[in-house]
Order: sequence, then C-alpha cells, then structure tokens
Amino acid sequence: MAISHVSDLETPSVLIDLDKMERNIAVMQARCDELGIRFRPHIKTHKIPDIARRQIEAGAVGIACQKVSEAEVFADAGFRDIQIPYNIVGRRKTRRLARLAQQAEVTVTVDSRLVIDGIAEAARETGVTIGMMVELVSLGERTGTTPAAALELARHIAATDNLRFAGVMIYPSDAAIRPRLLETLELLKSAGIAVETVSGGGSGASSDAHLLPELTELRVGTSIFWDWTCVAADRARFDNCAMRVLATVVSANEPQRVILDSGSKAIHSETIDGLYGYIEEYPAARLHKVNEEHGYVDFSACDARPQVGDMVHIIPVHTCVVTNLHNQLYGLRGDAIEEIWDVAARGMVW
Amino acid sequence: MAISHVSDLETPSVLIDLDKMERNIAVMQARCDELGIRFRPHIKTHKIPDIARRQIEAGAVGIACQKVSEAEVFADAGFRDIQIPYNIVGRRKTRRLARLAQQAEVTVTVDSRLVIDGIAEAARETGVTIGMMVELVSLGERTGTTPAAALELARHIAATDNLRFAGVMIYPSDAAIRPRLLETLELLKSAGIAVETVSGGGSGASSDAHLLPELTELRVGTSIFWDWTCVAADRARFDNCAMRVLATVVSANEPQRVILDSGSKAIHSETIDGLYGYIEEYPAARLHKVNEEHGYVDFSACDARPQVGDMVHIIPVHTCVVTNLHNQLYGLRGDAIEEIWDVAARGMVW
Repeated sequence: MAISHVSDLETPSVLIDLDKMERNIAVMQARCDELGIRFRPHIKTHKIPDIARRQIEAGAVGIACQKVSEAEVFADAGFRDIQIPYNIVGRRKTRRLARLAQQAEVTVTVDSRLVIDGIAEAARETGVTIGMMVELVSLGERTGTTPAAALELARHIAATDNLRFAGVMIYPSDAAIRPRLLETLELLKSAGIAVETVSGGGSGASSDAHLLPELTELRVGTSIFWDWTCVAADRARFDNCAMRVLATVVSANEPQRVILDSGSKAIHSETIDGLYGYIEEYPAARLHKVNEEHGYVDFSACDARPQVGDMVHIIPVHTCVVTNLHNQLYGLRGDAIEEIWDVAARGMVW
Repeated sequence: MAISHVSDLETPSVLIDLDKMERNIAVMQARCDELGIRFRPHIKTHKIPDIARRQIEAGAVGIACQKVSEAEVFADAGFRDIQIPYNIVGRRKTRRLARLAQQAEVTVTVDSRLVIDGIAEAARETGVTIGMMVELVSLGERTGTTPAAALELARHIAATDNLRFAGVMIYPSDAAIRPRLLETLELLKSAGIAVETVSGGGSGASSDAHLLPELTELRVGTSIFWDWTCVAADRARFDNCAMRVLATVVSANEPQRVILDSGSKAIHSETIDGLYGYIEEYPAARLHKVNEEHGYVDFSACDARPQVGDMVHIIPVHTCVVTNLHNQLYGLRGDAIEEIWDVAARGMVW
C-alpha cells in the first residue's frame, strides 16, 4: 500500500506539521535578522539534510552538529559550513574530524589543552586547518572553562599550526553568563586576540539574545519543532509545536489503565511533572509511565476515553530524543503526507 | 583501519563479553531444564538473529518478540516459532501479522474482544491460523484481564475461525499472581478448554518459577546480558553482566564535573538511585546526569579520577534500551573483537 495519507500510517509514527515547521523556521530566522546575528541551526532536533537545507534557504549561515559522525552525514549531503560544539577526543575521532575538514569548513569547541593538542596533531597529519572556539563554562556546569583559562587556551590555539582561533562558545547562553563573557572578551582584547564569533545556544537562547548583545551567532535546534519542555518553559505554545507521535490504544479495560502502543522506544523517557507526553485530544489524561513498548495513561480525570484501536496525538516532552528513536519522520500538510524523510543521522553516536 | 581489538573502537561502543554471555545462556537454559519447562528467549535485549540462534542451539524452543516488525526481521532470518506477547491492533499491523504467519508459526496475546476480532479478520483474509493466548493482568497492572474475562475471551477464540487458543500469558510472572492464575486455569478446565501453554516472563521470572509450578514456559530477555537493574534486584551480580558501554572522558576541569562522551543517546536515561550507570573502574563515582551526548560524573568521592582521553566501562541500568540505541554491538573475547553484530531489529517500533 502506498503511503500518502495519515490514515495509511502504522503507529507509532512521528508526524511533522509542515505549515508549523515552515512558520517556525521563518520566525527564528526573522528573530536573528532583527537582532543582527547569524543563525546556525543545530541539526540534532531533526537529523535530516533536507530539513537543514530549508533552514539554509531561509537564511541560516551553516549548521551545528553534536558529533563527527553526524557532521559526516551532512558533509556528504553537501553542507560546507559545519560547527561541532563538542570536545572531540580520541585518535580515531580526531582523524575523522581532519578528513571531514577536507570536505567542509569545520569549527569545533574545546575546554582543555589535551583536547586542543589531540585535534592539532590530526589536523597537521592531514594538512587541514580546523577552526577552534573556547567554551566558557555556563551556569549549566557541563563542559567549558573559566575566563582566565579561556585566555590561555586561546593563546595556545593561536600559536598552534593547523588551528584557527574562532571565538568563544557558550551553552546555554542565558543572560546570567554575561559578566563571565564580558570578562573573557576583555582578557582576549587586552591580549590582542581577535574574536571572530561569539556563539550562543540552547532552546532558550533566542528569547535571551537581546540581553547578550555580544553574541554574533545563535545555535538553536528545538525551535524548528518545539516541544512540551519549551511550552512548559514559556518559550513556545502548544500551537507552535510541529511534532506529534501518533499512537494507538491497545488496551482499555479500566479508565485508569489505558495502554498505548508507544512507550520509551517511541516517545522516550524524559518527563515533565512526572508525565511522558501531552495527549492533545485528552488534556486531562495522564501519560504517567512507560515501558519500552507500552505507554500507561490514566483517563480517570477525563469525561470520555478512547477505545482499543483509537488513535491519539502525543506532543513529546523533548523532540530531539524522539527523532533519534525513529527511522522516518512524516511531513504532513493537513492529513496528506507530503514528505517521508529518512532520519539520516539517527543513532550517530561517534 | 580494521577493527579487531578493543583499542580499535571509537566510543561510545557497546561491548559484549562473550564468555559471560555464553555462560548466561547456558545457566538460564539449565534452570529451565531443571524446572522441566520450555525456555523462549525474548529477543528485545539483543535484537540480533545470530545471538538468538545461539539460544536456540542451547535448547530454547523459539523466540519472543515485542513487535510485528521485530518478528519480521527474525522470520526473514529463518526463525519459525515466534511469539509476540502483545495486543496487535490496527489494519496494517494485523495484515503484516497474517503475512508473518505464512512464514512462521505465530502466537500472540490478547486482552479484549476488539483485539481478537481484528486479528481474526486478517487471518481469515490471508488464510492462515494464528495462535492466541489470553493475558492475565498481573500486579504490574499493564495489559491483561481478569480470570472471568479470560474465560470469555478463551471461548471466543476457540469459537473463531483461523484462531487457535494457545493458553495463558502473564507478565511479570511473580509468585503473587498464583491465586489469579489458578482461578483462571480452573475456570478454563471447567469449561472444557484445554490449556497448551502457561507462559511466564520478566527478568525475575526464573528465580520465582519454582513457586509457579503451573508454568510450562518462560520468556526472559535480560538474562543473556543482565544489567544494573537486575543486580540491584539481587537477580545477578556485576560479575555476570555481559554488556558494558565503553566511554571516553572529554572534559575534566574539576573533580565534581567530569564529562563523558556518553549521554542518553548512548546509555539511555533510566536510573537507579538517581544514577545513569555504574562505572566499573570507579565504584564511588556518581554518573548523576545525562544530556544527549554528555554524561556528568562526580568523582569527588574517588581517590583518583581519569583524565581527558581516558576510557571507562559503564554497566548500564537497563540493557534492552541501550541495545535499541546502537547500530552495532561488539563481541569480545578478552580484548579481541570476535564479533561485530548489526543490531538488525533496532528501532523496530511497529
């Protein structure tokens, strides 16, 4: 059977509302244009070259990928400006990175000398130049370093062959980081080191961007689809959410014990207030537990409840992790299926 | 570069200790032989036909899959006795199920008339016979029905063309379910309905199986690899665990803020006591947070801590969900890579 209408789909399937996705692309680009900064979509949210191409056509300057293996998929699909905001560590990975830099202009981020030196060695062997930004530790306390250490790393990068100092990166770039960012920029300026890019990122990055006028570029992934996490954080409305997981009721013997065919393998296991997804048709239903192939929904607070065979639409807690679980996304215009995309960079963990 | 030694691998990679896996296969088969019941491995834990073949060679009677699309992968690989302990719902799925029954002997489970009738229609159209077990609701309160309803469903199955009543299924089959199981078996006996199989399952099913002498078969997945969840539940020891995720330290600027290249895309986001995995080399280290590509480890309680570039072995919280995230598993004998398996049924959500 050919697949051309939503009723042709098996469940669970991931539906993308094309009207909403296109609007989301346009809104984010307009926001960056208005701020006078570059937009660099993070492809982790969709992992699909055709969708990234639409973001570039709308005005994005390039893409961000989180792993070398993701970047390879996009380089093979023709993308030529790729940033990997990640510490690339290990001989095999740095060699792959250097080969990637033969195909595309590649920039990475670093937070220690060990990371810099490993990449430099591979770049030298391969005869390529790799762009390198220092990452400033944010309030999220993940990777990144202090302003003083950032200056030392920037000096080291600038003094190393086959590397190009490309600027400063922050994740997430909320306004609270500004004192630390200003201190870093001042140190770099005093040392005579030019800063080409100050790159901010995270799904809340655009709403705060006017409070960080030093930013020259934004890396955001989620804004193309949005999700329940963004709605809960007041960064989007359900009406902007472009991704839904279509699920089928497979058991409904009790109102408080309705089971969907969509569990952690289909909607992931991140939660908001203990719930694994927002069921659009039944706002009072509580999707309170998942196993791999089962979603447990309590409909006891609902006036009506679905029967076995009925379908529901779930707005996921976090779209990026849902994309990574599926081999295809379906692009819908109304109920017509206009696009069937392979998730080309799904499962790229290297 | 050819991959033949563990040092050839990039991280994150999923390592399977072949000695431990082989021992785990033998131990579970011996346990079932001793109990005088059939063993039917659930393939969701490995999703790899070659591994299931080793379980069959050790004495297993067939396999269990959780989805039709998983079962198709195994039927194509030559497996001929496939149980799907799941309510198969929806026209496309029931048709696929009926086509599967042209290739292999197929048994499913049901807990309502709607599920039975949908499958019966597809079986009739295709001209196949599908085995059907009724599922008894367990203390886990997922799918399944009551003893009285189970009798009605069994009668309905027995009276429907193209279906074969195959018995009673329970998940998880802990000893507390016994009164309900006995009541059901008594009702079926009084009605003159023969029960060919009583199928128990779950990772704790084998330890409790002697307390449920009515069982004729066990479906267990996790016992082939075990995991931290099973160790925490006292069903295995770390020494029995056959799966490890090899991860690399990418940032180590502070002892309480060491970052691994393995986050929820590599080790999943299930937890035990708030931790996302057990780091074998550093038992006091706390892997307390994950993002998609980052694992946050607090080494402040450790005497030593790794540097950027060092690797660690993580025993996952739950092996089945880790397998589903990776395209390959690596089978190791010591440090030599003896097998590279594609995870053939990875991402099969239908």
